Amino acid sequence: MMKKGLLIVISGPSGTGKGTVCKQLLNIEKDIKISISATTREPRVGEIDGVNYYFIDEDIFEKQIENDEFLEYAKVYDNYYGTPKKYVIEEIKKGNNVLLEIDIQGALQVKEKYPEGIFIFILPPSMEELKKRIIGRGTESEADINKRFESAFEEINYVKEYNYYVINDEVEKAVEKIRGIIKAESCKVTDNIEEIISRYKEELSC
Amino acid sequence: MMKKGLLIVISGPSGTGKGTVCKQLLNIEKDIKISISATTREPRVGEIDGVNYYFIDEDIFEKQIENDEFLEYAKVYDNYYGTPKKYVIEEIKKGNNVLLEIDIQGALQVKEKYPEGIFIFILPPSMEELKKRIIGRGTESEADINKRFESAFEEINYVKEYNYYVINDEVEKAVEKIRGIIKAESCKVTDNIEEIISRYKEELSC
Repeated sequence: MMKKGLLIVISGPSGTGKGTVCKQLLNIEKDIKISISATTREPRVGEIDGVNYYFIDEDIFEKQIENDEFLEYAKVYDNYYGTPKKYVIEEIKKGNNVLLEIDIQGALQVKEKYPEGIFIFILPPSMEELKKRIIGRGTESEADINKRFESAFEEINYVKEYNYYVINDEVEKAVEKIRGIIKAESCKVTDNIEEIISRYKEELSC
Repeated sequence: MMKKGLLIVISGPSGTGKGTVCKQLLNIEKDIKISISATTREPRVGEIDGVNYYFIDEDIFEKQIENDEFLEYAKVYDNYYGTPKKYVIEEIKKGNNVLLEIDIQGALQVKEKYPEGIFIFILPPSMEELKKRIIGRGTESEADINKRFESAFEEINYVKEYNYYVINDEVEKAVEKIRGIIKAESCKVTDNIEEIISRYKEELSC
């Protein structure tokens, strides 16, 4: 029996630096697969189909929703964004770990479709630091900053839906924790009992 | 609210090298506390009370059994051996992780008294390798070796009582897995939800 890979879902409020954490994790753990999202929005200059996104037409996207082909999807303004189920499930079956970096609403949808995933919630070191990071982007008005900050604070309550929390005070430390979680999950006895025992029994019966 | 430490129980069949793994783990993770066993046997030359063992009299040991002062105990030939509960519980309350390296029967007793412990089962890379390791000790007759080998094989079935399994093919790798398990367990959301959320709420209410 082949050991299945893990679906690692990394999520959390905006401004917690989950993108940076994921990038660094993938730099170290080269074997982790990343899922590519599908979208109905137009490709921007330099974006490549199948690399940045799968760019597909709205009628096809809606057909795929109907056929339950997404682990999660959302409509943002006029465009759909979603995570195709097929690639993720195939890689997991092959024994590969797959990383999904998505927002909280997306993660909750994935949890419904694939509850055996590993759901990791990235938290800021403090609310003060989170505010600094949101301001640091320098692209938003004060009202927008406050709105984003308040919503991030509300979102922290969703941590209860996750398996693990990682406070991103230093990226390196946060990455080490996530690597630890992945290692630990691969060592869990549950679901692997038969595989473990048969490993030794088969050897003796040869 | 103070975050409690973890009780890490490392166990497995004899010959799997759990002693070496624990020694190396403690070399790296200096903050882990080790529990010292109590015994009624006579100290050997060079053994120090409170370092190698707590050497106590049989009537006191039996009184302590009655008072439920052990996480686990056993009588081997004419001597008692046991893990005093007090030290372990105190360190955990202080937020320290405590390591217990014990045989399977002991681990199962600990699980009954402290089910929230982290139970890690060390496995040999193969039965062939296990046999080599048992023979390698060079202290036993062929009959004894075969008996020990068969009992080790039977013991593998106990893996189902544990949370994690670690195959000890290379000590360094096994230690890294255990370090990952400890990191992951410290990041679990369950039991920490209130602590996590209040961390941010308190900051904002200051």
